[in-house]
Amino acid sequence: MKGLKGALMFAQSGGPTSVINASAAGVFIEGLNSEQITAVYGAAHGIRGILDEEFYDISKEDIKELKLLKNTPSSALGSVRYKLKDASVDDTDYKKLLEVFKKYNVRYFFYNGGNDSMDTCNKISKYMAKSGYDINVIGVPKTIDNDLFGTDHCPGFASAAKYIATTIMEINLDAKVYDTGMICIIEAMGRNAGWLTASAALAGYKGLGADLIYLPEVDFDVKKFVEDVKRVCKEKNNKCIVVVSEGIHDKNGTLIVEALGKAGARDSFGHAQLGGVAATLANLIKEETGIKTRGIELSLMQRCAAHCASKTDIEETFEAGKQAVKAAVNGETDKMVCYERKAGDKYVCEYKLLPLELAANTEKTVPKEWIINDGTGISDEFIKYALPLIQGEPEMLKEDGLPRFAKLKKVLVEKK
Amino acid sequence: MKGLKGALMFAQSGGPTSVINASAAGVFIEGLNSEQITAVYGAAHGIRGILDEEFYDISKEDIKELKLLKNTPSSALGSVRYKLKDASVDDTDYKKLLEVFKKYNVRYFFYNGGNDSMDTCNKISKYMAKSGYDINVIGVPKTIDNDLFGTDHCPGFASAAKYIATTIMEINLDAKVYDTGMICIIEAMGRNAGWLTASAALAGYKGLGADLIYLPEVDFDVKKFVEDVKRVCKEKNNKCIVVVSEGIHDKNGTLIVEALGKAGARDSFGHAQLGGVAATLANLIKEETGIKTRGIELSLMQRCAAHCASKTDIEETFEAGKQAVKAAVNGETDKMVCYERKAGDKYVCEYKLLPLELAANTEKTVPKEWIINDGTGISDEFIKYALPLIQGEPEMLKEDGLPRFAKLKKVLVEKK
Repeated sequence: MKGLKGALMFAQSGGPTSVINASAAGVFIEGLNSEQITAVYGAAHGIRGILDEEFYDISKEDIKELKLLKNTPSSALGSVRYKLKDASVDDTDYKKLLEVFKKYNVRYFFYNGGNDSMDTCNKISKYMAKSGYDINVIGVPKTIDNDLFGTDHCPGFASAAKYIATTIMEINLDAKVYDTGMICIIEAMGRNAGWLTASAALAGYKGLGADLIYLPEVDFDVKKFVEDVKRVCKEKNNKCIVVVSEGIHDKNGTLIVEALGKAGARDSFGHAQLGGVAATLANLIKEETGIKTRGIELSLMQRCAAHCASKTDIEETFEAGKQAVKAAVNGETDKMVCYERKAGDKYVCEYKLLPLELAANTEKTVPKEWIINDGTGISDEFIKYALPLIQGEPEMLKEDGLPRFAKLKKVLVEKK
Repeated sequence: MKGLKGALMFAQSGGPTSVINASAAGVFIEGLNSEQITAVYGAAHGIRGILDEEFYDISKEDIKELKLLKNTPSSALGSVRYKLKDASVDDTDYKKLLEVFKKYNVRYFFYNGGNDSMDTCNKISKYMAKSGYDINVIGVPKTIDNDLFGTDHCPGFASAAKYIATTIMEINLDAKVYDTGMICIIEAMGRNAGWLTASAALAGYKGLGADLIYLPEVDFDVKKFVEDVKRVCKEKNNKCIVVVSEGIHDKNGTLIVEALGKAGARDSFGHAQLGGVAATLANLIKEETGIKTRGIELSLMQRCAAHCASKTDIEETFEAGKQAVKAAVNGETDKMVCYERKAGDKYVCEYKLLPLELAANTEKTVPKEWIINDGTGISDEFIKYALPLIQGEPEMLKEDGLPRFAKLKKVLVEKK
């Protein structure tokens, strides 16, 4: 059964990626072409834009600029980290959302984000169903962390992985240039899931990787770490490249960056605000070995380096947005779009739908059996998994030798 | 008068760049094609490789791999930071160099590096001339710092500038994604010359730059800095992007990173080992404003990101290597290759020769009149200067979605 004729509302949430706007482009372009859809809205700053009735009329945008979104990093509409309370505890926000959806005849709602956002999307979907308001709600996945359950991989991961692998290859060449010792400790994002850190193994596959890779899936032992680095230095003329996840922790679950003495702030979801573990470990290793040591944080670059994105990721992420609209128009609701890899040697990605409650709040981590060498290496299974995802170069429009990113007019819809 | 028939020796020195090997490719390819040149050698780790008689026979390399050097970052032969004593104080090293040059009939010597390396090259050139040994010595410039005297710009600078501008554009989009406050403090390399930091202005030219840019050419006042940031935050909804040079210092010349409490190590040339000023200032600003603040160090990436190099830079750097060999074979010696920009609207780069003693140890900094807005901005003169240099994308061979860098066999020449 087809969805009702009505408006489409799309919102972006959580930490951005270098390709997140490719899904926006997919949703917008598909939405503008659909006969069922009477208006296409993009909410400013995720769920907040809906609550505040601040959203843009996407039909006012140039199609050329909407296409440029495919190569424009970060959330073009603005993002938010806003946790909806359980409706059973406080349904104020839900009532407001329902009011807005009714007022603007929104019959299609798409929320683009990671774990927390899928939780938000799930809660909204359930509330709307319970309230009897006819709306089709579809989650569009996004996260460089690659930790969403039920999907082969997540939109945004491959581009971050490609940037990390490329950068580690380049750092590998740079760090080994002198005949004196040099230890590099490189920090990748990832609180509980080590997918990004594991991407360093792709650089290793090309012969220019890291000597030691530490994922948050394995308890981190500082003493063993120091021994590992000393062993590599002994074997390799005092040269050693280490990649660590920001989320590495000791056997009690205490983050290493905190265990070694730095207090951590927490975000509105209660997650520790990480960063700084590379510098912390670099100081320790410098003291322990006397060898020149450099801590390198890949920081925001790993999630916004659109100039080094994976074309495969861009196209899949774009298609995920289109598939979400197609599914909703065809009457699907309460689902998240996910990727399924077809069996066989040739890589083919198919688009499926997964119940939202399964996607929400379940983290997918790197399989323990892929972590080898006493917790310092990654097996070929990961290479086989990740390599097809990073293929292809972005077709990025350049002006003056620099990226020409999308420029949206962002015409606000008049408040009713 | 042509140079004598004999061997060519090429060495790389100092901090690498993402295009330094393009000069190596130019020297090698031109050398292998020259009738005057009987053998082409590449020294391992700069001047050390000559002193230790460790150099590679470049004729044994595949031409395909030599061409790949154009897109391979870091010094493929290995680099060194080794300061030659004045020959009048201790001529041990010079005697050894002369002995090696004679033994292998080296009649062409090319040294590829920045200020310190041109000093080394100059000293060697003067010693060889004094000793009566007939050899043609040419310096091939290289430095991301862009601080060599007598050349319009330096090989390697434009690629670092392009990476920095591209990355700041991407960070700008990422950092402004939430509706809450966010201050980013980004650190670029550059001890005394702010060319790299000024490159942030290229991102600003595209509308996605920094609000405040601090170069080492201007004394840095911490109090004024805090006021500047607070002012921008007030104007821009608590969003502020700052770019600082690692070398910013107070009016007494004390580095800010040291003044704010961190002791600095020094390298073998007596230069302070910098880094960490972004993190230091971020901590300060966080305390002063209470706004979320992130310190980002562009670290090694800014000098090794070959995937984001400037094609103009690559081709000019390649040509600089070729021009060095052509000049030497034609009898030139005791010179450095330099770039001269032809007058007129259209950018044209010409290759000239400059006496080595003029190039050695004279630092070229950003003209004071290009630094505007009370020391926090860069004028359009810089844009006009830098924009032509960052044009064009690298034609990088990719395999498996990752760069395919040159793989040299590095066949050592048998010791005589």
